[in-house]
Amino acid sequence: MKICLKNAISFVPEGTMTTLAAQTQAANELLENGQGAGNDFLGWVHLPSETTEALLNDIQATADKLRAKAQIIVVAGIGGSYLGPRAVNEALDHTFGLNGNNPKVVYAGNNIGEDYLADLMELLEGKTFAIINISKSGTTTETALAFRLLKTMLEKQVGKAEAKDLIVCITDKAKGAARKVAEIEGYKTFVIPDNVGGRFSVLTPVGLLPIACAGHDIKALIQGARDMEKATGVEVAYENNPACQYAAMRNALYQFGKKIEIMANFNPKVHYFAEWWKQLYGESEGKDHKAIFPASVDLTTDLHSMGQWIQDGERSIFETVISIENPNKKVIFPKDEQNLDGLNFLAGKRVDEVNKMAELGTQLAHVDGGVPNIKISFEKVDEYNLGQFIYFFERGCGISGYMLGVNPFNQPGVEAYKKNMFALLDKPGYEEESKAIKMRLGV
Amino acid sequence: MKICLKNAISFVPEGTMTTLAAQTQAANELLENGQGAGNDFLGWVHLPSETTEALLNDIQATADKLRAKAQIIVVAGIGGSYLGPRAVNEALDHTFGLNGNNPKVVYAGNNIGEDYLADLMELLEGKTFAIINISKSGTTTETALAFRLLKTMLEKQVGKAEAKDLIVCITDKAKGAARKVAEIEGYKTFVIPDNVGGRFSVLTPVGLLPIACAGHDIKALIQGARDMEKATGVEVAYENNPACQYAAMRNALYQFGKKIEIMANFNPKVHYFAEWWKQLYGESEGKDHKAIFPASVDLTTDLHSMGQWIQDGERSIFETVISIENPNKKVIFPKDEQNLDGLNFLAGKRVDEVNKMAELGTQLAHVDGGVPNIKISFEKVDEYNLGQFIYFFERGCGISGYMLGVNPFNQPGVEAYKKNMFALLDKPGYEEESKAIKMRLGV
Repeated sequence: MKICLKNAISFVPEGTMTTLAAQTQAANELLENGQGAGNDFLGWVHLPSETTEALLNDIQATADKLRAKAQIIVVAGIGGSYLGPRAVNEALDHTFGLNGNNPKVVYAGNNIGEDYLADLMELLEGKTFAIINISKSGTTTETALAFRLLKTMLEKQVGKAEAKDLIVCITDKAKGAARKVAEIEGYKTFVIPDNVGGRFSVLTPVGLLPIACAGHDIKALIQGARDMEKATGVEVAYENNPACQYAAMRNALYQFGKKIEIMANFNPKVHYFAEWWKQLYGESEGKDHKAIFPASVDLTTDLHSMGQWIQDGERSIFETVISIENPNKKVIFPKDEQNLDGLNFLAGKRVDEVNKMAELGTQLAHVDGGVPNIKISFEKVDEYNLGQFIYFFERGCGISGYMLGVNPFNQPGVEAYKKNMFALLDKPGYEEESKAIKMRLGV
Repeated sequence: MKICLKNAISFVPEGTMTTLAAQTQAANELLENGQGAGNDFLGWVHLPSETTEALLNDIQATADKLRAKAQIIVVAGIGGSYLGPRAVNEALDHTFGLNGNNPKVVYAGNNIGEDYLADLMELLEGKTFAIINISKSGTTTETALAFRLLKTMLEKQVGKAEAKDLIVCITDKAKGAARKVAEIEGYKTFVIPDNVGGRFSVLTPVGLLPIACAGHDIKALIQGARDMEKATGVEVAYENNPACQYAAMRNALYQFGKKIEIMANFNPKVHYFAEWWKQLYGESEGKDHKAIFPASVDLTTDLHSMGQWIQDGERSIFETVISIENPNKKVIFPKDEQNLDGLNFLAGKRVDEVNKMAELGTQLAHVDGGVPNIKISFEKVDEYNLGQFIYFFERGCGISGYMLGVNPFNQPGVEAYKKNMFALLDKPGYEEESKAIKMRLGV
């Protein structure tokens, strides 16, 4: 993994980076010594190196059991319990679903779409399916609602005894409704550590079990994260520490008016990693009426969409480009005798060669147009590199959040809509709020 | 279709809307009388009312032929030739691909991903497939590259004679490489009108043929657009004209520091409409170093992602919520005797009732947090309503762009990356540029 800042540094005044580089060291030390805000949620910092073989083997064995029994595995979760595993699986799965003998992995509990749930239940009708229920509390509305519907359906289809072996719960070690259900019903469980927040949870069983279920190598994923944990630790000086460099660069750009960070990829396989990254940075930093707004594009697709805005709109943006050095498969562009499309100058080239020139051409065009460019390169899309990707952005996020002066590990704003929703739905315990909100709405 | 501005108007000073309302009338008249910038690209303005039954019947008959022969239909196109048909098809298709006897519709030519194309070719191997090639010039790199690969593969699989009946070209009426290929090979063709740009093309054969191929009702789609064409015309005063109201409101918010518009939906079916909308507004307005930055979220999914930022980040955003009044299917939330998840207060309700309270609760929370809210409601997700949706946002875009003072119908910035890419790839005709760019890069 490599980071290149040279096309971004030129956009900030001289000296800026020297000051910010020093700040990254202090911020990184706060993550290490646990003296910063939100220090009860730092379990992710040494998670890769502390993950035991025993845990990985237990996850793999559980995945193997589900894989042997189920045609479809439904992952019920929201936020980090959805975006983390989905990002990894979408990157590694076949684009059009030709995943050999692997079960189909689908997602639920991340929305309240009635049509979505109806379509899902049609898919599952008559199929053998398993459920991975991921919820710390077991009462998150979206996930609990989907889980009740799916559990009811599964028990009806295969009976309660068989359903027990097709349901796994990933939840709190002791508290909460999901833990209680699992104990009563006798489900296999895994623990979400107390000190790891949802958006930092992909390297816990939350991500690892769904990823193993899809047939991907979780040990290689963890190995990539371990290597990145070493490469970004406090003992690694700024000059060699990509997480510090990324955090410094984005804060420098923000200070000088670049309010929107656009994550761009040239490989549609990593599309969902941008969704994961938006949660990680948006939820960690978006507080106290500040923070970079994270957005994303798939290129070259969106060069024919948001490309115009990026090239010529308000000069308030910068790009972070995820560059994948090598494709996994091979397509050579064929020669055509007639050459009516005029593309014979590409004949004999790999498609990726064309893509790389699109990438370089775009970088030059956008930088010329006033858009700073951070380039982050990974060797290829595989478990090892994705493990690096995950930990790199997590570490960068912790450092960046501390530099911005927020608590990167809470999410107070997420409660606001829930409180209103519960009041509107007359949830027991919300009687006062129900009265108040109905008065406000005049109903 | 309804628009509600009351939760946005309160964020702009009194009198602002009166001034802007008057401007919308002038801008709307420019669209009608063709006296504004980019007036050679106004063919979309009366496209719905001018679309003939004969054209719709021809498209339907062509779709029926492809549907009868092909298991998979590949739509090759980029920009509006991709996002338009995909948005409609994703909204109307089954979420998990259970589309009965309809062929599977997939997309190509919108990226240069080697793995993507390799995966696509694996999917098509041994299947009967058809190709819809959409390109005005026939030389747009992404689409031409995919088309050459797919055409080669198809001719190899079924022979040149049979392939001829499985390929349809949508292209310029007379000029360009795609037209020439179609004439030489004898493909069925449809015309992209000269005066309709790509991002406004979904109601031409560009969108209609792929939509008909997926089994959706293109006549109902056009009828919805026709009704919206009437409802947003120059003869409809501001008070009753939703396109004018939307254009006025977003320009007012932009003038007062709201730099980012977030399109939010509570129904994952319309996810791709936000992608279509981003192209429409981003490419039409993002020029001269100005314009609102269009972004999007799927809710409640992303309330557990970007929700924190929206609630508490920089107060530089507003939301445009797409509200779907009624789901198409029905799921009742079941009662559970044990009620360990505490959700029995929802038992007996439709899932959509819960979703609607999430929507209302979110609106109240975000407005309280300082985020102006424009609400645009559609009765349901069907062809008729989507036709309204499309034309509403097109008309709103033309009006809004003129109010902003840009030419909403060009896209000069899209050329920049192409020029560099061709130079880097040594495309014939780019010899000077190749020399210059290689010198710049020191290679």
